[in-house]
Order: sequence, then C-alpha cells, then structure tokens
Amino acid sequence: MSDVFNRLSELLEQRKAADPSVSYVAKLYAKGLDSILKKVGEEATETVIAAKDGEREAVIYETADLWFHTLIMLAHLNIKPQEVLDELARREGLSGIAEKNARPQD
Amino acid sequence: MSDVFNRLSELLEQRKAADPSVSYVAKLYAKGLDSILKKVGEEATETVIAAKDGEREAVIYETADLWFHTLIMLAHLNIKPQEVLDELARREGLSGIAEKNARPQD
Amino acid sequence: MSDVFNRLSELLEQRKAADPSVSYVAKLYAKGLDSILKKVGEEATETVIAAKDGEREAVIYETADLWFHTLIMLAHLNIKPQEVLDELARREGLSGIAEKNARPQD
Amino acid sequence: MSDVFNRLSELLEQRKAADPSVSYVAKLYAKGLDSILKKVGEEATETVIAAKDGEREAVIYETADLWFHTLIMLAHLNIKPQEVLDELARREGLSGIAEKNARPQD
Repeated sequence: MSDVFNRLSELLEQRKAADPSVSYVAKLYAKGLDSILKKVGEEATETVIAAKDGEREAVIYETADLWFHTLIMLAHLNIKPQEVLDELARREGLSGIAEKNARPQD
Repeated sequence: MSDVFNRLSELLEQRKAADPSVSYVAKLYAKGLDSILKKVGEEATETVIAAKDGEREAVIYETADLWFHTLIMLAHLNIKPQEVLDELARREGLSGIAEKNARPQD
Repeated sequence: MSDVFNRLSELLEQRKAADPSVSYVAKLYAKGLDSILKKVGEEATETVIAAKDGEREAVIYETADLWFHTLIMLAHLNIKPQEVLDELARREGLSGIAEKNARPQD
Repeated sequence: MSDVFNRLSELLEQRKAADPSVSYVAKLYAKGLDSILKKVGEEATETVIAAKDGEREAVIYETADLWFHTLIMLAHLNIKPQEVLDELARREGLSGIAEKNARPQD
C-alpha cells in the first residue's frame, strides 16, 4: 500500500482502538456516524468558501479536511478507500489510459 | 505518478482542451467555478444521504462522485491533488509512521 | 393564516394531489424524500455561493429557493411550517419581546 | 410586522449593537460572513440527517436552526426577510391564490 489514502486508512483503523480522550479521530468514532457526516457537510461548505475566495492555501487546507473526514466516514463504515479509488478508475477507464501511457514511444 | 488521483489529475488536465459538447468535465470547466462548487455541495449531500441509508455500494459511488468533483475543482484552480495529499501526509506525520512501520520487529 | 409560509404550506398540501407531469412540486414528492433533501443541500450551497459573491438579488433568489425546498421537505414529512416558527419564537422569547414592544412608551 | 420572521429580523438588527461576549448572534456577526455561511452549510446537513432519521422533533429543531442562520446571514447582508418572502409570493402567485381563497363560495 503505497499512497497517502491507503496509509491514512491503515492509521484510521488503528485509531479505532485509541482513547477518545486523546485522539480526535477516536472521539469522532465514539460520537457516531451523524457527527462524522456533519463534519463532511461542514468541510464541504468550507471548501466552497475557500474556493470562492480564490485562496490557494485555504483550498488545499479545506480540501484536505474534506477528504480526511470522508476517510473517517469510510473507516467507520468499514469501507476501504481503495474501493472508492477502484470505482473512480473503473469509470474513467484509467487502467486503459495507464497502459497507453506506459507504452514506449515510437 | 502511480496512484489514481494523480492519474485522474493528468486526465483532468487533458480535458481542459476537450470539446464541452462531448466531455462532461470540459462542459463543467466551461460553466465555471460556481457550477463546479455546486456539484461539490450536491455530492457531499448525496454522500451523507447514502451513508445514512447504510448502503455500502451507494456510499462508494457517492464518495467517488464527491472526490471526482473536488478533483475537477482543484484542476480548475490549477492545484495538484498531490498538494492536498502532501498536506494530509504532513498533518498525520505519515512519513514518520511509515518509517516506524517499516522498522524490523525486535 | 396570514403569512407567506403558511399560505405556501397550504399550496404545497394541495400539490400533493397534483399531476407530477405538470407540477414541479408534485414531481419532487413523487421522487421521494432523498430527492427533496438533495435539493435542500444543493440550494444551501447555492445560497453560500451567492452570499460570497455579495450579489444582493442572487442572495434573495437563492434563499427563496432554500426556504422553498425546506417547505417541500416539511410538507412531505407532514410537518407544518408553523411548528418550526413556533420553535423559533419559543427560543427567542418572541412573545415576551412582542409584548414589550407593544407596551406604550412612557 | 406580524410574523415570526419579521419579528426575528427586528431582533437580529438590535443584536448588531450587542456585546459579542454575551450574545451568540453578536459573536457570529463579529466573526464575519464566512462563519455565518459555515453555520448555514452545517445546519443544512443537520436538517438532512434529521429528515433521514425521520425524527419529527429533530426535523423541526434543525429546520429552525437552518432558518435562523439564514436570517442572521440576511441581517448581516442588510437584506430583509420580507424581500425573500416577497420573492416566494411572487413566484407562487400567492396574491392571486389568496384572492381566490378569500372569494365566497357559490
């Protein structure tokens, strides 16, 4: 597992056993699905606001927050981010594109 | 660039030159930032609804939609998804964790 | 029933018997709760975008859309908008304030 | 001004002069538009979650929160809720409907 989402996923699994009084993620798990989903909605709005402001650093920061909370949601529902990435790859026919890009130039 | 987000990012760059009448992504670019952000808000709500329903396949599908539209937003703003992934890795101290995990067990 | 929300509520009740092929509201009812909630989320995002643009007319238009779709949601769930208005009045102690405002000036 | 929204609007105007350390609304005004809009997005998500749960009391409570924060947004932007209500009445042709309803039955 080489990419950030998969490594984060591993970390978020480990946090399921963490103490809610010391870990932000463990605290969110303990609060339950609704609290996690409220954060997803909240971070989506913050991403929109940052994008409207056109502030590059804020967009990166808020998108990171949004992705992070969707990863917590997936972990809570026992869905691997790889399953979402596979769905994206499937849709966009990325395997085919990767193959084409990997082909040596004539 | 090995992971799905980076490959999608490459694809989304290419779509900037595509015909809006044939490409969904090119059409969204042409409509502008507000239309892209409306989709981000819409897909976040659909993700919340799918998660409340507890339907695993729907959560995967809607999260893919949400991530996809945030990637379009990033491309439109000339931000690489790697910059968001770097922010996430930085926060979570993933390089350190990876190092620790790679360490041989005593 | 004198105010706009209560009159709209009456109208939205009547639309429950309307033909989905001719009435936008009847069509939304027929699609079900999830479709109504998606519109609530979508219109909230559009309100945020309009407010960020600082365009007065757009804010009025999008807030009207947002309130309208929450009224459709309430009607679908057989909740009267007056119940929400009563909750707001209760919280803000409006009856007391109204009484105070109605008191003749010394 | 007889209805709840107009009375709340009056109250929200008064709070512009209140001390942010004692008034929730004055504190939100002081934080600025982005903080108000984040609350609008957050409360929209909470309304969606309550509606998915089908919990009547929670829907009333969260819709009240959503409407309340849109009223704070309008006050911050110096827009009267009556302007939004007028837009809703205009769209739905409510004056005509009210006239028709007021007409004596044959």
